[in-house]
Amino acid sequence: MEKKTIAVVGLGLIGGSLAMALRGFEDYRIIGVARRQETVDYANAHGVGDMAATEATEVIRKADVTWLCLPPQGILDFLETYKNDFKPGSLVTDVCGVKTAIVDGAKCLPPSVDFIGCHPMAGKEVSGITHAEGTLFRNAHFIITPRKGNTAEHLELMKRMGEYMGFRDVVTATPQQHDVIIAYTSQVMHVMAAAVCDDPDLFDCKGFEGGSFRDCTRVAALDVPLWTQLFSLNAPALCKVIRTLEDNLRSYRTAIESGDRTKLAEKLEYSAARKRQMNLEGPPRGDSYKPEG
Amino acid sequence: MEKKTIAVVGLGLIGGSLAMALRGFEDYRIIGVARRQETVDYANAHGVGDMAATEATEVIRKADVTWLCLPPQGILDFLETYKNDFKPGSLVTDVCGVKTAIVDGAKCLPPSVDFIGCHPMAGKEVSGITHAEGTLFRNAHFIITPRKGNTAEHLELMKRMGEYMGFRDVVTATPQQHDVIIAYTSQVMHVMAAAVCDDPDLFDCKGFEGGSFRDCTRVAALDVPLWTQLFSLNAPALCKVIRTLEDNLRSYRTAIESGDRTKLAEKLEYSAARKRQMNLEGPPRGDSYKPEG
Repeated sequence: MEKKTIAVVGLGLIGGSLAMALRGFEDYRIIGVARRQETVDYANAHGVGDMAATEATEVIRKADVTWLCLPPQGILDFLETYKNDFKPGSLVTDVCGVKTAIVDGAKCLPPSVDFIGCHPMAGKEVSGITHAEGTLFRNAHFIITPRKGNTAEHLELMKRMGEYMGFRDVVTATPQQHDVIIAYTSQVMHVMAAAVCDDPDLFDCKGFEGGSFRDCTRVAALDVPLWTQLFSLNAPALCKVIRTLEDNLRSYRTAIESGDRTKLAEKLEYSAARKRQMNLEGPPRGDSYKPEG
Repeated sequence: MEKKTIAVVGLGLIGGSLAMALRGFEDYRIIGVARRQETVDYANAHGVGDMAATEATEVIRKADVTWLCLPPQGILDFLETYKNDFKPGSLVTDVCGVKTAIVDGAKCLPPSVDFIGCHPMAGKEVSGITHAEGTLFRNAHFIITPRKGNTAEHLELMKRMGEYMGFRDVVTATPQQHDVIIAYTSQVMHVMAAAVCDDPDLFDCKGFEGGSFRDCTRVAALDVPLWTQLFSLNAPALCKVIRTLEDNLRSYRTAIESGDRTKLAEKLEYSAARKRQMNLEGPPRGDSYKPEG
């Protein structure tokens, strides 16, 4: 019996890691698609999927599952361009960090093609296939945004793929819920890391940084075109979170400026208690580097 | 020949780790001092230093080096109370995260006692002797703030102790320089982590957090009395840095709100380039957990 096919369109950091992590999944073969021959050669030489090609049309016509692992605008363009080339009855999914715009864009697909939006909460501060790793998704959250009309088979298949790739859990949300929450848990962290690096004293601080500075600014060297799109596609939710953070920082500044140590201690106690209540289980940090005390 | 003595006053996370890290240093024996008998018993049972006691006076009268590992106000009080008990010709140092206030406080010491302020840029988000580790300082910066009149022998001794404990390097600054820079590299990171946890959506975000959220909020569950003192003793420098961060966040928000993607991309390129130029070498993060992309 011929194997079924999973197509991974776009072999950057996420697509490449997906193609590696999905190898051996049930009775599927994994076919990567990349625009550049150099990327395809790298994929074929390094086991990124079972094989790779530069031509999308032939691959997605036969694919039972197609993962779109392109930048946000690239996903929207691909859906529009190839909407009539996906195999009828197949599943199409994506990895975009904003979901409302993508799920809206997927409305152009014919009814015979099933679309489930997805956001693997994993990544690195470097991009490209050469940084791809089959273990990238271990312990990360796998968020899916089902829509009305998704088949039970495809929803189950998404969950099995998520488990196979090593995700910690499968989390379900509407695209709108996802975008509001992600503005807070991910996007504003990146804005903050960038904003910290804009301080005029940045370069004077070398030799004085501890773990908290390293951790907070780690994601500042981001993929500019990608994050410009992600921020722009989620502007209202993100701006609301940034404004709340500005307010909360100002409130701390006011308390410190006032010289009222009791009030400052109360504020710190409030925040610290919230952090402890969150109690993110997370994997143990295996590194020996400790933050400053 | 009788061994020389290093006294470590205060056996919390930092003092305990110091007493462990210094064991076997040259021809010194390490004597810990803690107020509570329970802490002394723990120290003696777990090799935190070579021995421990509850009475400070006897120990520091014979100590060639005294490390003050108490909270900021505790250090100031100890200096005032015991100023005439330190051994003439001995070295006194401390571990406080702000230096101007401590170095000012040390002016009460008699001329025969040499004081060198110090800030080991390491720590953890938990406190107490049970979390102490002899490897806590590996790869961290060891900042010293020498003052006029320090002997060359004692400055050399500080550096050798720093090396022995596994610090990455020894960095020298004036107390004022230290406090301005540390407001940026450490204190504001803690304010930010706390401020992020004040967002009303905190508890709705479980299941949606990635590496950047974990990393940024890690230090929010801080030791409230300690950080209240640290922030208050460095209020002007810290408030200036918080204000700059508020401004830089607002500038990002304005760019995102404007819908001008070219301007947003330019801002992100500017910040990302600064981050790359910083190029903090840091130890490799040994964990397998990856941030979201």
